[in-house]
This record gives sequence, C-alpha cells and structure tokens, in this order.
Amino acid sequence: MKTFDKQLWEKINTRTKPLGSLGKLEQIAFKIGKIQQTLSPELRNPAMLVFAADHGIADEGVSPCPKEITWQMVQNFVNGGAGISVFCKQHNIHLRVIDGGVDYDFPEELNVESCKLARGTRNMRYEPAMTIELCQTAMNKGAEYVRQEYERGCNVIGFGEMGIGNTSPASLLLHKFVGTPLDVAVGRGAGLTDDGLKHKYNILKEVSEKYNPQTPLETLATFGGIEIAMICGAVLEAKRLNMLIIADGFITSSGFLAAYEMQPDILDNVIFSHASKEPGHKSMVEYMKGDPILHLDLRLGEGTGVAIAYPIIQSALVFLNEMASFDETGVFEVEKHR
Amino acid sequence: MKTFDKQLWEKINTRTKPLGSLGKLEQIAFKIGKIQQTLSPELRNPAMLVFAADHGIADEGVSPCPKEITWQMVQNFVNGGAGISVFCKQHNIHLRVIDGGVDYDFPEELNVESCKLARGTRNMRYEPAMTIELCQTAMNKGAEYVRQEYERGCNVIGFGEMGIGNTSPASLLLHKFVGTPLDVAVGRGAGLTDDGLKHKYNILKEVSEKYNPQTPLETLATFGGIEIAMICGAVLEAKRLNMLIIADGFITSSGFLAAYEMQPDILDNVIFSHASKEPGHKSMVEYMKGDPILHLDLRLGEGTGVAIAYPIIQSALVFLNEMASFDETGVFEVEKHR
Repeated sequence: MKTFDKQLWEKINTRTKPLGSLGKLEQIAFKIGKIQQTLSPELRNPAMLVFAADHGIADEGVSPCPKEITWQMVQNFVNGGAGISVFCKQHNIHLRVIDGGVDYDFPEELNVESCKLARGTRNMRYEPAMTIELCQTAMNKGAEYVRQEYERGCNVIGFGEMGIGNTSPASLLLHKFVGTPLDVAVGRGAGLTDDGLKHKYNILKEVSEKYNPQTPLETLATFGGIEIAMICGAVLEAKRLNMLIIADGFITSSGFLAAYEMQPDILDNVIFSHASKEPGHKSMVEYMKGDPILHLDLRLGEGTGVAIAYPIIQSALVFLNEMASFDETGVFEVEKHR
Repeated sequence: MKTFDKQLWEKINTRTKPLGSLGKLEQIAFKIGKIQQTLSPELRNPAMLVFAADHGIADEGVSPCPKEITWQMVQNFVNGGAGISVFCKQHNIHLRVIDGGVDYDFPEELNVESCKLARGTRNMRYEPAMTIELCQTAMNKGAEYVRQEYERGCNVIGFGEMGIGNTSPASLLLHKFVGTPLDVAVGRGAGLTDDGLKHKYNILKEVSEKYNPQTPLETLATFGGIEIAMICGAVLEAKRLNMLIIADGFITSSGFLAAYEMQPDILDNVIFSHASKEPGHKSMVEYMKGDPILHLDLRLGEGTGVAIAYPIIQSALVFLNEMASFDETGVFEVEKHR
C-alpha cells in the first residue's frame, strides 16, 4: 500500500512533462494536495481579509506618512481604487476590509466592517502597544472573520493590512522572535530618507531595550499592532480549519511569525506569495522556511502580493488536475525506461 | 510640454501607493504603455504559437528522449492534455500548434496546423542543420502566423516549441552568438544523467568546431532548428507590427537571440516570462538585458512560462488602468510634500 504522499508525487510525476520540469509549481501542488489529503485538490471561494489599525508609535515620526493615510487608504480599499481592490477584482478574490482599530469614524454607508477595538495602539515608546487582553481580543476577532469565510465555503485565505507606522512593530517582532539584528530588521517602509531611517532605528532600539516580554503573546502585545494580532489569530484559526493560508509581505508575515512562535505547525498550511523588497522580510521568510513564489520587488502591503500571486497557485492545481498522464496519452515515459 | 515617457511615469507614480512599491510591475506597465504609446495600454486577444519540428542531431543521443516524443507531445498539445494546453486554457490564450517539420504524418482530423518544411533538420554533426533557403522559409512562415494573429486583433503574443533534441541547437546558438563557454551553455535538457551530459557536450563541441558561419542567418541555419527559425521570424514580424512579445525558456529564447542579432531593437517589445532552470538561459537573458518575471525553476518549454506569467503582466495593466490616483481619492501624497 503506497502512502498518500507517494501517490501524490506519482500523480505529479506522471503528468506528460519531463520529471520535475514544473519546478516550484510541483512543490505547491504537492503542498495543497497534502493539506486537502486528495490527489485532486481545489481552491474554493478565495478570500482576502484586510485588517486596518493605527499605531501609537507613528507619533514618533517613524514613517514618512501622516497617520491620516490609514483611514484614507481604508476608504480607497472599499471604494475600489487601491492596489488590493483592483488585484482582488482581477482574480475574483472576495475582499473584506476590517477596521480593527483605526483612529477615525468611517461613514456608515462605507463597506468597512467595524471591529474597532481601540483607536490605535498606545505609543510603545512609553508603554506596551497593547494590553494582553486587547491583544487576545484582537486575535479572537481575527479568528472570527476566518470562521465566517470558512462557513461560506472558503478553503484558501490571504491576509492584508493597513496601518501607518506598522513596519515598526513588524521590525521589532522580527528582532525579538528571530534575533535578526535591528539594523537589518528596520527598513525604509513607505519610503524613508537616510535620516528618517536613522531616526526610526534609534526610536526602535530604545523601544526594543525598554521591555522584556517572556511569551510570544506578551511579545506580540508589547511590540505588535491590532491588525497584526488579528492576522496572528486569523492564521491560527485558518490552520485549525485546515485552509490554505497565503502570506503577503513584511507586515502580514510578522503576524504569521507570531502565530508560528505560538504554534509551529501552521507552516504546513502556509505559502509565501512573494519576497518583499523590505529587507527584513527575507530573514522572516527564511526563519519560517518559506520559498516565496514571486520576486517582483513589491513593497506595497495591503495583501497585494497574495492577490498577484494567486493565479500562479491556481496554475499548480491546473497542471495537477488537468494535464494528461503518460498512460492516458501514450506519450513515451522516459523515466520508466531509464 | 511633458514628454510621453514622463507622463506615463507620472501616471504610474500618482496611483495611490508608495512611490515604486509595485516594483517590477511598474517597469512592465511602463514598457507596455511605451510600446502602445498610450497611458492606458491594453492586451487584446493574446496568442500562443507553438512551433514543432524534429532535429537530426537527436540521432546522436543528445537527449534522454526518443524522437517520437515530438509527435506524441504535439498530439497531446492539441488534445488538451499538455502543460501548454491547460495553462493557455486557464488564461484564455489562443493556442495554435504548428507542425513546422515533425518527422510524422499527423491525422488530418487533429488540430495541428501543417506547415511541414522538412521532416526535421539534418544531422549537424555531418552537415549544416538547414540550408539558408530552408531557414529563410521557416522565418517567413513564422512571420506569416504572427500576421494572421495580428489581423485577428491580437497585440500580445508568445511563442513555444516542441522538438526532441532542441536544447542542442539552443546551446550552440548561445555559444556562437553570445560567446558563452560551451560547458555553461550545455545543460541536461529533459533530464540527462552525468554521462549523458558529457556525451552531449562532446558531440556539441565537435559540431561547434566544424563550421564557421559569418552572419546571424548563416549561424541560425547551421546550428538552429526549423521551429527556432520560425520563432526568429515570428519575433521580427511581431516587432514590425509593434506587438508585445513574451519570451519563454531556453529554446524559444534562442530564437529571440537570433532575432536580436539581426535586429537589436526587438528588445523594445520583449518581456521575458521566466528564468529557466536550464543553466544557459541565464546568460541568454542577461545578454538581451532581460529581467524575467518568474523564478519558479521551470524547464518544461512549450511556451508554458509565457502562459503562467501572463496574469502577472495583466496585473501590471490592471494597476495602471484601474487604480485611483491621489487626486481622485484625496489620499495624502507623501512625495508631493517632501
């Protein structure tokens, strides 16, 4: 009796192509087949949850952007004009935009889902970004949205984020969880100048040295963000529901990182959509043994990498499910005659 | 009065995203806008022309595959079971399969387009693969198919190939045109063992030293293949018709290389879909100053990389044409206030 893994590789290897010639698509096909425990896996009702929240640390000038851009971009998401809006539309990905903690009151007629847990995190230069309670609540809420999608029949989910200043928490989480030196973990975000980058580094160094959290949850609460905690909880829930989970860039991956520290087996269900231009992303992905699909120097966030990479993931299943086998076609199978 | 280039970059840069944050998608959007000389470029009626032909050099055991796989795979293409079939279907790319010189008589009811110029090339170990006349005819025929697509309203075209043994001509063309050392230019193709690779190298070294063609056309005729010459002619015609031309892997790119030697400005219209695992592809692409979209270790050929990368190219235009601007949305434009 062949193991399931062996049967799945056999299906991949008997499609009419030279052995291994579809490269990383074969790895992706295998991963999804293994998650779904079927030789004919399918992606159903793909969803993109974008969590938005503000950040107290933004008051320290760690971003070139004023905080108002958070709510302005959230409006842009739901009005269809942002990157994540147009790429989700391109690939029929169900986009939901969730206000987890934006410092702004959205008009009710806008299609922003309200889950406002605070009006942003506290300024972690002076106190931990979140209390443990707030962080835990954010994780639970993130999980709730995933459950809703699951109940809708979704088995593949990606996460995005919006929050001016949120490369700072992502850099600190990377530094604390992975041990990446802070000067590697800190990048230019939305486009800091050299001086701005130096200032950001100095602020984050001070913040990093101020606290000594013990558990992953404490670390996430101290240095994280509401949207990052929501992503962390969402990833854990998506793993529990055995969905395919697609990571985006630097900030969403920091939520994945926190989830990984809490529960390493999430990686069985995770695919990294792209290698971000933000320098810290590389060590994050390596730490989680990821092999990003795209290398396009993206650094937009919002979940855009997930949406852009989605058709490539689909191609992996298209080849697995739709290509004919050597037996079916009578094409000579070289490997069988070596 | 702003130049067109400046206007196009201004449109890219005023979409609601951090400056440059869509990375290579921005380069692609710019390239297509520039080709079409419009701020709102469109891809229309995409086509994939797959040219198939046999190779005399296959008699020397340079491939692990028997020659019959050429016609078997051509049947598989038109029957819908091959990689190129399923990926073209996935993205609504019009697939045409053209028999340029396969050593087999296809049943008429099959949807293989007959343009049989020979029953394969001659064995270049003993004589040039093609006469100048055959090579020129193949180029003209390739151009004809492109014109047909153009007249159908197509403005974006990719090329694929099938021909057991055809990494050998591709390696020799790379060696001759670019000067890449033969041991770098020669690879495992569909899966040679170490011994097989050594044998292939020895044969190709002998062939390489046997002839001294002077012009690109002579070089292509001496070391090329019918399908490669058809691709070369097709590329030149697609450039003349100002189409977007998408290159695939090692073998199709060798046709692009021949076209580039004849007319360097083809590059204005060329995008490389992916970086092949076949080692010589890298020097080929670098020589043509390409920046491949995908890095998925593909080495299937057939045009599959083009089809798989196609939605990424579409994403570049989706962002350019559908994302809102800072002015339209009122989102604060950081770069304007630096």
